[in-house]
Amino acid sequence: MTGFVSFVSSGPGDPELLTLKAVDRLARADAVLFDDLSAGPILAHAREGADLVGVGKRAGRASPKQDHVSRLLVDYAQTGARVVRLKSGDSGLFGRLEEEITALSAAGIGYEIIPGVPSACAAAAAAGIPLTRRLTARRVQFLTGADVTGGLPDQNMAALADPAATTVVFMGKRTFPALAGALLAAGLPGDTPALLAEGISTPAQRIWRGTIATLVDALGNASDAPALILYGPLAEDARDA
Amino acid sequence: MTGFVSFVSSGPGDPELLTLKAVDRLARADAVLFDDLSAGPILAHAREGADLVGVGKRAGRASPKQDHVSRLLVDYAQTGARVVRLKSGDSGLFGRLEEEITALSAAGIGYEIIPGVPSACAAAAAAGIPLTRRLTARRVQFLTGADVTGGLPDQNMAALADPAATTVVFMGKRTFPALAGALLAAGLPGDTPALLAEGISTPAQRIWRGTIATLVDALGNASDAPALILYGPLAEDARDA
Repeated sequence: MTGFVSFVSSGPGDPELLTLKAVDRLARADAVLFDDLSAGPILAHAREGADLVGVGKRAGRASPKQDHVSRLLVDYAQTGARVVRLKSGDSGLFGRLEEEITALSAAGIGYEIIPGVPSACAAAAAAGIPLTRRLTARRVQFLTGADVTGGLPDQNMAALADPAATTVVFMGKRTFPALAGALLAAGLPGDTPALLAEGISTPAQRIWRGTIATLVDALGNASDAPALILYGPLAEDARDA
Repeated sequence: MTGFVSFVSSGPGDPELLTLKAVDRLARADAVLFDDLSAGPILAHAREGADLVGVGKRAGRASPKQDHVSRLLVDYAQTGARVVRLKSGDSGLFGRLEEEITALSAAGIGYEIIPGVPSACAAAAAAGIPLTRRLTARRVQFLTGADVTGGLPDQNMAALADPAATTVVFMGKRTFPALAGALLAAGLPGDTPALLAEGISTPAQRIWRGTIATLVDALGNASDAPALILYGPLAEDARDA
């Protein structure tokens, strides 16, 4: 008897931003493997008696190795359990889904992926702005500000310094000064609007607005909360007008 | 007495991909203004007696002018109503949110934005693949394949022809042959994996897998269902392995 794994995207943090399908899968799971970011009230949707297993990874802290998480997932499923693998935001965006999918496939275990609300979309919504605009922001791009070593990954600077795109940098607080330097060198004006969104959709939510140039200074005072950085032709928050 | 507008993202189509917050706002609305793509079972969450107003726009069909939709939204809110403006996918992505926000702000009407599951994330999930991969797809970008005239918008080809990014083209079936030609001219190999996702998360869902070169031919047989095109270093669907 083989189990089944549901990769469930838990959204940005606010339990109200779970989808109905995510709630259903949590309520029917025998075991829930969760990361730090998706813990807390969201786990209240799991049934009593379900195994709740923290396998958290978080920027700046020691974390279980990815292959340990994959092995745990396979082990649980091989007991015949319905397993939920809870991942924050949308699991297909910087969720390292492919390593776990590969491990399941190698073990012959079935899975499904339940998409969710990306933290990038929640950050823009909280700031009261759209990620795209019909004339000035016809492309939006998401990238990670930290590779496996914690450094800034090689990137296509023609893409990132495009003034007609909205860019969202995930996990990029520590490396943003280096990225900002590269953006300015590639010709993006320092007064391009930028926004730092910390603890999005949680009680700790804080949104800071400035420019690429001023954000580099502001980062000195940033908390260690999970954060996104947005820059580009960001609409003014009409609510501030 | 002034009303209030909730921009509610309805997700890709499957009513189970609504968030709990979207369901709450629908249940409390006096009026729901919806597009074609977000209609159907999702509207069943509205309370009995709520005004349900179709303001649909759909590629290839005549549609109400955007300023008419904005005016209707303001008019409803000025009656003191709680208004839900339902938009498919995530409302901040190609939802033309800014025009409606601007109209509300000019009229002094408050609003909130409820983020949702983007159709791009749902398409990748349905195909069983992540949008990002740690080593080979560290950037993901979304763009629209049709500008207000229906033509292919000017784009940054260095960004779009980047073999290390996953690209999702919204509303791009008609213009993809032109885009594909530009991608090949910019150096992206014709055998780059490509995927056509039609009617995502609806009963009409159909996923076609090929390459950029073969997709151009396959589009001749495509339906007129709403579709996304994905291309780039797409992971193989491990479920097919």
